[in-house]
Amino acid sequence: MARERLERLRERMRDAGIGVYVIPSTDCHESEYVCPHYRAREYLTGFTGSAGTAVVTPEEAGLWTDGRYFLQAERQLQGSGVRLFRMGEPDTPDVETYVESRLAGTGALGFDGRTMGEARAGRLRAAAARAGATVRTDRDLVGEIWTGRPDIPDGRSWVLEERWSGESAESKLARLREQMERAGADVHVLASLCDIAWLLNVRGSDIPCVPVTLSFLTVTRERCVWYARPSAADGVRAYLESLGVDVRDYEEIYGDLKKLPAESRVLLDRRNVNSLLVTSLPAGAQVIDRPNPTELMKAVKNETELENLREAHRKESVAFTRFMYWLKTTDEEITELSAAAYLEARRREQEHYLEQSFAPICAYGEHGAVVHYSATEESSVPVERKGFLLVDAGGHYLEGTTDTTRTFAMGPLTDEERRMYTAVCRGNLRLAHARFLRGCTGLTLDVLCREPLWELGMDYRHGTGHGVGYLLNVHEGPNAFRWRNPAGETPAPLEPGMVTTDEPGVYPEGRFGVRLENELVCRELEENEYGRFLQFEILTKIPFDLDAIDAGQLTEQEKTWLNDYHRSVYETVSPFLPEEERIWLQQFSQPGAAGQNRARTNFDLLLSAEGAPDHEQR
Amino acid sequence: MARERLERLRERMRDAGIGVYVIPSTDCHESEYVCPHYRAREYLTGFTGSAGTAVVTPEEAGLWTDGRYFLQAERQLQGSGVRLFRMGEPDTPDVETYVESRLAGTGALGFDGRTMGEARAGRLRAAAARAGATVRTDRDLVGEIWTGRPDIPDGRSWVLEERWSGESAESKLARLREQMERAGADVHVLASLCDIAWLLNVRGSDIPCVPVTLSFLTVTRERCVWYARPSAADGVRAYLESLGVDVRDYEEIYGDLKKLPAESRVLLDRRNVNSLLVTSLPAGAQVIDRPNPTELMKAVKNETELENLREAHRKESVAFTRFMYWLKTTDEEITELSAAAYLEARRREQEHYLEQSFAPICAYGEHGAVVHYSATEESSVPVERKGFLLVDAGGHYLEGTTDTTRTFAMGPLTDEERRMYTAVCRGNLRLAHARFLRGCTGLTLDVLCREPLWELGMDYRHGTGHGVGYLLNVHEGPNAFRWRNPAGETPAPLEPGMVTTDEPGVYPEGRFGVRLENELVCRELEENEYGRFLQFEILTKIPFDLDAIDAGQLTEQEKTWLNDYHRSVYETVSPFLPEEERIWLQQFSQPGAAGQNRARTNFDLLLSAEGAPDHEQR
Repeated sequence: MARERLERLRERMRDAGIGVYVIPSTDCHESEYVCPHYRAREYLTGFTGSAGTAVVTPEEAGLWTDGRYFLQAERQLQGSGVRLFRMGEPDTPDVETYVESRLAGTGALGFDGRTMGEARAGRLRAAAARAGATVRTDRDLVGEIWTGRPDIPDGRSWVLEERWSGESAESKLARLREQMERAGADVHVLASLCDIAWLLNVRGSDIPCVPVTLSFLTVTRERCVWYARPSAADGVRAYLESLGVDVRDYEEIYGDLKKLPAESRVLLDRRNVNSLLVTSLPAGAQVIDRPNPTELMKAVKNETELENLREAHRKESVAFTRFMYWLKTTDEEITELSAAAYLEARRREQEHYLEQSFAPICAYGEHGAVVHYSATEESSVPVERKGFLLVDAGGHYLEGTTDTTRTFAMGPLTDEERRMYTAVCRGNLRLAHARFLRGCTGLTLDVLCREPLWELGMDYRHGTGHGVGYLLNVHEGPNAFRWRNPAGETPAPLEPGMVTTDEPGVYPEGRFGVRLENELVCRELEENEYGRFLQFEILTKIPFDLDAIDAGQLTEQEKTWLNDYHRSVYETVSPFLPEEERIWLQQFSQPGAAGQNRARTNFDLLLSAEGAPDHEQR
Repeated sequence: MARERLERLRERMRDAGIGVYVIPSTDCHESEYVCPHYRAREYLTGFTGSAGTAVVTPEEAGLWTDGRYFLQAERQLQGSGVRLFRMGEPDTPDVETYVESRLAGTGALGFDGRTMGEARAGRLRAAAARAGATVRTDRDLVGEIWTGRPDIPDGRSWVLEERWSGESAESKLARLREQMERAGADVHVLASLCDIAWLLNVRGSDIPCVPVTLSFLTVTRERCVWYARPSAADGVRAYLESLGVDVRDYEEIYGDLKKLPAESRVLLDRRNVNSLLVTSLPAGAQVIDRPNPTELMKAVKNETELENLREAHRKESVAFTRFMYWLKTTDEEITELSAAAYLEARRREQEHYLEQSFAPICAYGEHGAVVHYSATEESSVPVERKGFLLVDAGGHYLEGTTDTTRTFAMGPLTDEERRMYTAVCRGNLRLAHARFLRGCTGLTLDVLCREPLWELGMDYRHGTGHGVGYLLNVHEGPNAFRWRNPAGETPAPLEPGMVTTDEPGVYPEGRFGVRLENELVCRELEENEYGRFLQFEILTKIPFDLDAIDAGQLTEQEKTWLNDYHRSVYETVSPFLPEEERIWLQQFSQPGAAGQNRARTNFDLLLSAEGAPDHEQR
């Protein structure tokens, strides 16, 4: 199928005089998750991963993606005629270098200016200039060959009340305008859907797993204009009017930008607007290219949001712990899909639950090694009573968004499996218990998590953690944990209130995967003569699987951390469990016999001289 | 004295129409260590630290320096009329911001273009432009008021033979020219003295503690020109001729640059040339601003250099261990100065020793908290039989350069002193035993060293480590360990062959200082499916002071590391010790009684179940 689509695309390229055509994976907003209408790269190549760029030439077609997706892309591209380019590997050219090398004499470089981010468009234009080629950005060639393309969605929007958001849109707009003034900007152009949703306290339903509305926003000192599709605007029109926000149609922004005063000073983030927005500005406009001020503002959660998030995580942890109980005790046959369904059913029992925050990963055995595996009717396998089941899932609640991974021992484990699980767990604990000076970024702290694996000569080919939106994209910046910056962008310094995941893993190909993910919120610790020290609070309250821990690998300090964590899990979760599940959780702290397909989870196994956790005394 | 000099300077400023005058701490080569002729900032303010910038206005004079020098600068600036600006603290403006704020209406901005680095000059010019002020760079105003200014040195140069350098200058020049070609450069201008010395395999004697020659170098595809003072050139003229290097007078470079072909493509590093070199280029010249290729080339030591360095460190470690024996056993009265002299005497007994690689720090008690303390006849105090003596010293050998710090328990310690020493030692060991993927910078790894102190709510206000030159400046880039980049410059990824110090510390003000510094060389570990793993080899072989260790704070792994390290110290050093000192060192591994002013150093105190080190069996 991909071969035939590629041929039709190449015909259009020939007709348009385009020698190299680039198809990114995003929409007009540089979104990570995109609605089906904008999945042009997927339509063309068959690769369904969230990150990837396709490049088509008359002779070759290539797909660039990162380490998370190497295995999946290999499988999905088989027989497609599309070659996989593994980003980050030493011999892989970047997209621009490749484009430059293929342009000579073949015609223009082409891409759709609406779906190409301005920062990437700039790099592609530079590559074309080096190759002496022109650039065409007015043709959506995949759209032209796409039969049965889904419509642009037009879902209802709704207002997120202040008891959930913790700050009024008036207050947020006032803070934004202060920053615009400091930057000397007359106009601010926002295309990032999550920044707009956060700023206006409006949520929507246009993108699966991300409750936002397809829209643009322009902000001046006095007014705002929200560009959205008609039905999307209906539910929030009166609310927006009360804020002084005009509502216009989604497509009108390009024309309105052309009509800005010629000398406007326009604040925008080239990484987060599409190329057509920038090329629509009047020629004399001065672009102030900075991160959107809302990026940092929304990353620092306020006290109301944090209090809500603790509640959201309590609910998610109850659902996850009940799921764990079921996995460990049921006699039913389990499949990857039935396991995911059971977890989702427990989540649906929680009040204020809205939807999944991403497509869950429920991966048994060797599927666990596919970092972003997603079970389908075809791929789903029975879960046997041995080895690992890896489950990465999250939900949107009115109280905020969650993202958790646990790996469960479904029965006997090999020594290697146990060694790997323990190393991953050590990394997770070490990062969570870091104490650090203000000014640290996730680049400074990442190694704390990775070192137990590096000591074993192993690694995971993904970041250690990402920021988490509040009823927004489960992945958000500018905070993150990672050990290097291939793109040269350092994560932001950690600030109190930022929420970041802590998710080390190992993925021996073709055998199994282990990942353990908690969410951490950055908090004040103390200020003294040496500076302002920060620490983390662990939001997630789900047991680690002690059946998979080799206590001999843990230091005394790590044992204390693990026991303290499980004590707080029991305190948080147990009041919300059915009695037999509460007793099961409590038994985690009792010596127990090793079982095959039953939990023999045993806190005492881990205990140092510090004494046993005693849930009954509280 | 400073007050009177400031007044004379202000007179000159008034006459020249200069409102703000900036005096950096460097020479015409952006050197860290400068010969007395160029110490204008020291002459003016009285502050003797190696890093600091003075700014003088009609009303105020300020000195900017970093955390290493806060205590020293406070003391030396007392009564000088010069205000201390503590760089890195939240309320301290940077030099440029301050300059801009003081320029309005006061006249021109002035500095000496020969001693101002081009990168800093560019930032100052921008500040002046924002303030609407002109810039004068042709007046050395401090030189004009400086009576009895020392001459520019003109010492002899000599050729470093290939058995020490490991690579001929022909080969180095060929590698440099390859990189010039890749960068599309016709000419390369080098002002960095260490880069020039490394490239030509020439050493000199113009700068105390840095065996290099004051000179500039220009390199084209066919020829080189070395600009040096006449006597400096004499010893190496024939050798340089054989390399195709012309020799001209030191000052001629500025005129020669003016005569370059108008369209020359000139490779230079704006951070490492003075401003006058750049303003001397023809107007049409195209500057290719990159780090000097020699910076990375000389940082990666070749196998000959590494083999030599092991020998240099063996010699330094023998001297240091004998010094430790003497400190721990002598009945003599010791002062800071007599201790430093004893160490230097032991070093002078070693073959191929040339000179100190920096002024040693020998700091007893509260002096240890002054990070860059240097004992003088006035400041030197008796070393008592309690508390800590901190000694940071290094030497140049034909086999390379060393830099080591040890802190010695001179008798009973407080619990706090022991706790601090142990935390510092843990940090040192953790970094030294890191295993990491290629691509890691010192920014990724720094926290391994710092975390044991951060856990206690403490920190040290300096980097964890710096690159070390080979018979060059003891501080060199581009490798370093640090946890943040105030200037936005990330250290280079660690490559096999790079040598970096590992030197955590704590400095409770007014009480004591602890610093423990080893040198680490980066080495290959293994390449596997996850990537190319690297590790460190510890070059320094000097005992830690086990009298100061609280074994209860160490993990089992740290105990093993410490015991293994001391085993390798004994193996390396003991064959070169007098018999009674060898026995003393051996007794480190025997259970011993606690002493007051004697070592009760005791490996067994530290031992885990892994077994005692048994020196006699080897």
